[in-house]
Amino acid sequence: MPDQGVGSFERGSRLLEKMLGPGEARRVRTAWRKLSPDFERYVLTFLSGEIWSRPGLDRRTRSLCTIATLAALGRSNGLALNIRMALRNGATRAEIVETLLHIAPYAGFPAAWDALVLAGRIFAERRRGGAARRRLRGGR
Amino acid sequence: MPDQGVGSFERGSRLLEKMLGPGEARRVRTAWRKLSPDFERYVLTFLSGEIWSRPGLDRRTRSLCTIATLAALGRSNGLALNIRMALRNGATRAEIVETLLHIAPYAGFPAAWDALVLAGRIFAERRRGGAARRRLRGGR
Amino acid sequence: MPDQGVGSFERGSRLLEKMLGPGEARRVRTAWRKLSPDFERYVLTFLSGEIWSRPGLDRRTRSLCTIATLAALGRSNGLALNIRMALRNGATRAEIVETLLHIAPYAGFPAAWDALVLAGRIFAERRRGGAARRRLRGGR
Amino acid sequence: MPDQGVGSFERGSRLLEKMLGPGEARRVRTAWRKLSPDFERYVLTFLSGEIWSRPGLDRRTRSLCTIATLAALGRSNGLALNIRMALRNGATRAEIVETLLHIAPYAGFPAAWDALVLAGRIFAERRRGGAARRRLRGGR
Amino acid sequence: MPDQGVGSFERGSRLLEKMLGPGEARRVRTAWRKLSPDFERYVLTFLSGEIWSRPGLDRRTRSLCTIATLAALGRSNGLALNIRMALRNGATRAEIVETLLHIAPYAGFPAAWDALVLAGRIFAERRRGGAARRRLRGGR
Amino acid sequence: MPDQGVGSFERGSRLLEKMLGPGEARRVRTAWRKLSPDFERYVLTFLSGEIWSRPGLDRRTRSLCTIATLAALGRSNGLALNIRMALRNGATRAEIVETLLHIAPYAGFPAAWDALVLAGRIFAERRRGGAARRRLRGGR
Repeated sequence: MPDQGVGSFERGSRLLEKMLGPGEARRVRTAWRKLSPDFERYVLTFLSGEIWSRPGLDRRTRSLCTIATLAALGRSNGLALNIRMALRNGATRAEIVETLLHIAPYAGFPAAWDALVLAGRIFAERRRGGAARRRLRGGR
Repeated sequence: MPDQGVGSFERGSRLLEKMLGPGEARRVRTAWRKLSPDFERYVLTFLSGEIWSRPGLDRRTRSLCTIATLAALGRSNGLALNIRMALRNGATRAEIVETLLHIAPYAGFPAAWDALVLAGRIFAERRRGGAARRRLRGGR
Repeated sequence: MPDQGVGSFERGSRLLEKMLGPGEARRVRTAWRKLSPDFERYVLTFLSGEIWSRPGLDRRTRSLCTIATLAALGRSNGLALNIRMALRNGATRAEIVETLLHIAPYAGFPAAWDALVLAGRIFAERRRGGAARRRLRGGR
Repeated sequence: MPDQGVGSFERGSRLLEKMLGPGEARRVRTAWRKLSPDFERYVLTFLSGEIWSRPGLDRRTRSLCTIATLAALGRSNGLALNIRMALRNGATRAEIVETLLHIAPYAGFPAAWDALVLAGRIFAERRRGGAARRRLRGGR
Repeated sequence: MPDQGVGSFERGSRLLEKMLGPGEARRVRTAWRKLSPDFERYVLTFLSGEIWSRPGLDRRTRSLCTIATLAALGRSNGLALNIRMALRNGATRAEIVETLLHIAPYAGFPAAWDALVLAGRIFAERRRGGAARRRLRGGR
Repeated sequence: MPDQGVGSFERGSRLLEKMLGPGEARRVRTAWRKLSPDFERYVLTFLSGEIWSRPGLDRRTRSLCTIATLAALGRSNGLALNIRMALRNGATRAEIVETLLHIAPYAGFPAAWDALVLAGRIFAERRRGGAARRRLRGGR
């Protein structure tokens, strides 16, 4: 494991940008940094640069497992971020909803409900965002 | 949805047997029935016959998401069963361990640890079981 | 269990309407359907049409146990719905508050506090709703 | 609230004995005292002498709500104690099982399973205990 | 334990006022009383008057342990109150953030994130409040 | 942050040994490595080498906050390890019990009970271990 530290920070930054898009990655990093610069650093170095950079599972599967976990635990900020990331990691909206239906009997229907409400809000936001971008480009 | 009830019980029974093997499926169904015949019926009809029978996600992904969820919530009987099922649903031991490493920073390292201990026990059991079966067949 | 599927959907729809009133039942079903038509179907068929339709416990007791469970787990959408249902299932406001006081030392005072805040909001809503209806009818 | 302190300790001791039987109450109090004399005192004074002594809900309903809560949270020592207490507080075995089936879709089937296993063990213990007592009295 | 009841109510009221300041203590007590007068009484008598009044640990350490616990369990009203109290119990903002970073790998990074967001909001409120008070006194 | 990776692995190994004693540190590292070599590496590098190595809070306070968190979440392997570590990090048995009493009304008495049972077992183990070592040295 030579120079893992520096390497994992760079790797984590690039991967986060890839999984969220540059604008959203910048926004969430600024938010983390404002809460605590070390929180931002750990998320980039360890979560993104180590855990998510591991080869053993593809990113779409990692996204769905993370969504299942955070829906079960009821963590809203992390769940919202991971629903956004899942869509760029190759999971479809239908697969995200399917994952939440799947865990309903395991974590309880109310946990799935709370998460479906959050997912619905994010999907709607992106529909509006997509429509706005299409209008800007002159298409409808 | 015509005759969903009867249909889903049959479908669920067959799927559980496929995902656990006939011996283990019989054992767990007997255990559930002894606790409560309706508990057995709901698991077969609803969890196995409805949720797990849905087309939107392959069974290997469903297994890994279930393992992530139950490790996060610390439910040992369900986690042990789902680790056994995952191995027949196409997940490797390495992928199960990978899933538990992945959720460590989301549900906490101690949740991953407790689940890794359980998974290690099940893997060891099956190694012993496999060795016993090989000896019975005249192999090593 | 002949034709349990169709039967339980109908039974569940009628029971939900009874436990919530037609207007609120329509609203929540529309919300569930928009999130996922299968989520709506499972809640009606399985939760309402099977679990809540069982004879072994009266609906008031079921409501109080559900409120205790969801307060402990911190699931807000489900808790709000079940507080509304409890009032139509024969539980008084005082009994709902009593249930939340009772679980304070079991699930922690902060879980009870969060749930009491939600309950207080629902009780206030209904007082205003009741006052509005009385004014409409020419009363007070 | 004059002399609530002394009063609630006495009231709590008597109520615990009533809800558990003298032998079991002595055993659990000794266990608590060994862990921490203040833990024993708080349980008697506050949980038993205050919360459980309140008039707003009957003890059978309190028992079922407590069982639902502790099954959802996966607390085994407390759950075992409360299953024993429930049987003396007027809840039948069938009602305890019914409560656990009821919360399965709210807290998840695996939470209900873990709790049903514990309940099954306690019911079996008591059957053996009852049979032993009947033999001692010269009956079968 | 003579006259523990009355004594602990008085002791708890004074300690809460000390840990929150008179204005905030009045506000939160009014809020609790409105939800349920007994909830207010139990918090003052038992949590504040007994648990927090014990000598075995200093109040700063108690505050940090409570913040860790409530962040792990995701209880927002209680967490917000305890962050406010911690600042008067001798913990600095940096120590509160440090506690939340510390539990990130134990309760999961998303639990720490949700709590850091809440802490950030409270710190900002107090900065604004402090600035307003300084302006009132003819400063800044 | 140059060469953080290599540095933090070494730092983490030394700190774990200091917090657990060489024998216990070796045992737990072997157990982690057997479950997954990467699990061992992350715990040493990230938890021990980063989080626990931070200056902002003394180790005794970190230990008590970790115990509070893991008792609330019911994670037994991690809780047992952290109770052992706390005793070497300067916390007394009385302070560990005090922490568990303190969180009883926040995480619920049953969570505190389960943790007190685990702590009691570890304290007894160490008393026996200490007595055995004293006998070996020719003392009582």
